Amino acid sequence: MEFLKQRIREEGRVLDGDVLKVDRFLNHQIDPHLMKEIGQAFADKFKAAGITKIVTIESSGIAPAVMAGLILDVPVIFARKKQSLTLREDLLTTEITSYTKKEKKEVYLSKKFLSSNDQVLIIDDFLAKGEAALGLCRLVEQSGANVAGIGIVIEKAFQSGRNKLDEEGYKVYSLARIASLENNVVTFVDEAAR
Amino acid sequence: MEFLKQRIREEGRVLDGDVLKVDRFLNHQIDPHLMKEIGQAFADKFKAAGITKIVTIESSGIAPAVMAGLILDVPVIFARKKQSLTLREDLLTTEITSYTKKEKKEVYLSKKFLSSNDQVLIIDDFLAKGEAALGLCRLVEQSGANVAGIGIVIEKAFQSGRNKLDEEGYKVYSLARIASLENNVVTFVDEAAR
Repeated sequence: MEFLKQRIREEGRVLDGDVLKVDRFLNHQIDPHLMKEIGQAFADKFKAAGITKIVTIESSGIAPAVMAGLILDVPVIFARKKQSLTLREDLLTTEITSYTKKEKKEVYLSKKFLSSNDQVLIIDDFLAKGEAALGLCRLVEQSGANVAGIGIVIEKAFQSGRNKLDEEGYKVYSLARIASLENNVVTFVDEAAR
Repeated sequence: MEFLKQRIREEGRVLDGDVLKVDRFLNHQIDPHLMKEIGQAFADKFKAAGITKIVTIESSGIAPAVMAGLILDVPVIFARKKQSLTLREDLLTTEITSYTKKEKKEVYLSKKFLSSNDQVLIIDDFLAKGEAALGLCRLVEQSGANVAGIGIVIEKAFQSGRNKLDEEGYKVYSLARIASLENNVVTFVDEAAR
């Protein structure tokens, strides 16, 4: 997705050779038009998969997921990171280790929103070591629903997440695949292969 | 906004006479089409106010804010509740007490996204005691920007938040105003006045 890669080149910042900061358009400030393009790309890719629900995780996955949900005409469910007073009934839960925050978090989905009839598209902002994506797959599969695909905005292809998801047989579609952040320079997978 | 009120009547659940649970379309599962309608309503109301940025707070404010941002053609910034490894530079911070979670949280915005030239529309999912909205106003004003308006999806008009915001002179626009949740029944302000 050339439009996204251009934004990463122009506005992304690399910290310590392995963290990519994209808070100008995705993780803190959000560009709604870019989110719409991203949602359209996910919708185009998975439109034949019979998607009935999109599952993401708060907070940075919500904007691209809602745009994809609008186009695919399906509800979006966001996994939450901590139990609030207003959610009490039966929950699906799992533990996810955050790569950037260096901490474990219990995340949950309400059971009532998924069933064995659902074909679920998982959407997240980043794929690094695959912890969040695999955690979302566990939550979805606990409900009996099927993970029909995984849409990732930015994949750090030099980390282990993509291989883990491929090995488990998930269909992963990443809009920008980063081969390296070495020397604090962003190199995409297609460029690295040239 | 009749469409929203109908969804609250049909799918909202009242807990303990003062908590309204709308996790079927706003706080956990999100209806993207409803979010678009909500975004359109905020955009229509504030289109003449010269809005340059929308500010919200994670997580439930993001979907309606991004839809409003798409229509008003402005970026959305979401205040974050905890400092992550990927955000290090100068931050605007304030403390907000969550009504539903019964806890105080430090929230922050990156300074670089707001300046004294900005006309900011604040968007949030609920207005109860006004803690989140007033906190977002403090963050915006710390930057020198102007709070041009506040868009609220659901206002609990029987709590103190609206009065506090009115007293401070903020322009508040709520799409659904709830007069009472007594006996676990939702009564809207216009109905209560009949």
